[in-house]
Amino acid sequence: MSSEIQLTPIRGIPEIRPGDDLGLMIARAADKMKFKITDGDIIVVAQKIVSKAEGRLVNLESVTPSEFAVEIANKQQRDPRLIEVVLSESANIVRSDDHVLITETKHGFVCANAGVDRSNVVGKEWVSLLPVAPDDSALLLKTRFAELLKVNAAVVITDTFGRAWREGLTNVAIGVAGIKPLKDFRGKTDDHGKELSATVLAVADEIAASSGLLMRKTARIPVVVIRGYYFDHGEGSARELVRLKERDLFR
Amino acid sequence: MSSEIQLTPIRGIPEIRPGDDLGLMIARAADKMKFKITDGDIIVVAQKIVSKAEGRLVNLESVTPSEFAVEIANKQQRDPRLIEVVLSESANIVRSDDHVLITETKHGFVCANAGVDRSNVVGKEWVSLLPVAPDDSALLLKTRFAELLKVNAAVVITDTFGRAWREGLTNVAIGVAGIKPLKDFRGKTDDHGKELSATVLAVADEIAASSGLLMRKTARIPVVVIRGYYFDHGEGSARELVRLKERDLFR
Repeated sequence: MSSEIQLTPIRGIPEIRPGDDLGLMIARAADKMKFKITDGDIIVVAQKIVSKAEGRLVNLESVTPSEFAVEIANKQQRDPRLIEVVLSESANIVRSDDHVLITETKHGFVCANAGVDRSNVVGKEWVSLLPVAPDDSALLLKTRFAELLKVNAAVVITDTFGRAWREGLTNVAIGVAGIKPLKDFRGKTDDHGKELSATVLAVADEIAASSGLLMRKTARIPVVVIRGYYFDHGEGSARELVRLKERDLFR
Repeated sequence: MSSEIQLTPIRGIPEIRPGDDLGLMIARAADKMKFKITDGDIIVVAQKIVSKAEGRLVNLESVTPSEFAVEIANKQQRDPRLIEVVLSESANIVRSDDHVLITETKHGFVCANAGVDRSNVVGKEWVSLLPVAPDDSALLLKTRFAELLKVNAAVVITDTFGRAWREGLTNVAIGVAGIKPLKDFRGKTDDHGKELSATVLAVADEIAASSGLLMRKTARIPVVVIRGYYFDHGEGSARELVRLKERDLFR
């Protein structure tokens, strides 16, 4: 039935290295699975492989922590070099206690450790950073899929963030191309003619979250293709998903 | 391919009234679509129809607002009777300004207006409240599907909540049955032998969010069946998704 949505994990993507042609590697993996990416598909890509392809990796051995980083690290019993990297990726500290360091990244995202992460990176002392401009990264992939596969597919780049008030992490969108990240129902009415209230939906985050069901941490599934979801095409930015500080009651 | 996930919207569910056998009505609608619910499916149900079936509806004409409700209503230019209902559903006010009223519900959920909502309810003066015990509501549905369809399917009840830091609403889980809402990867290692950090995933919220792609506000799709997601069976509670106040840096 055409109203279904299918989520397909793309398997067999090799370990990504700086400079790799990520779009090509995703296209090849899909091809090997005999999975044909088509117009209207949404290709959801985990931040980690985008960061690796873009060389957004830091060796902690090359990092000299500031006094402030050492202070936080001592308090949190963590590696001061890691804290230094987190601070250098941050525009502001949003909250910090004895365990966690939640910051606003230079992109405006609010998350733990500015998205800096040790896991799934080769080498004990290496960490990955978020892409510098995840919307641009998404557009680059979208363009590459258009070139290689002759398809008009949207791209969403995701990372796994925590939330206020709720336990557990979920996948959210940090970069988009070819899809509007928010869908605005304001002014529309329900089945009973009443105006819908407060209904701007974060569809890119719902797309990211759905891909999270397949992108399990221990499985090597960094790409999921979503088919059958009819979305608003067009240029958007994941920054639209970031609430401006002035509108945010929790900063 | 068996590793895919399918999301199927259940259409043709009639307007739900207090006392309706919701499980039966969902089963009938699926049957009419020739869609066979099977073991391992996750049946995601919008809070609104659960609340309606349970009679969690209030006529604002029957409400006398307190002085405090009037005060907030004046400040926010909203209906004082609605504010009164919100306050009566709340354990605490978390934040309030000239526009929004974010409270902790009696269940512990943090959301705007304690989940009280005017839209998609018959009658201009009627509003819907969240179910009193959404886990119990989910279990009742799960049991009904077992009776009617002889299936062991999980049930997730969802509502659409806002978030701190990010624009737009997403579907989250407010009740679960037959599925553990969190998946804990702590102590497991990545492909490179490094321990995964901070990886408790809110799978029930990712399930809810994915259903949100099909439960559009103006379309009459209050139920989505998710197939092909291999989850941790067992008794859980959506309360596990609620961060305890002592652990929450944003309350």
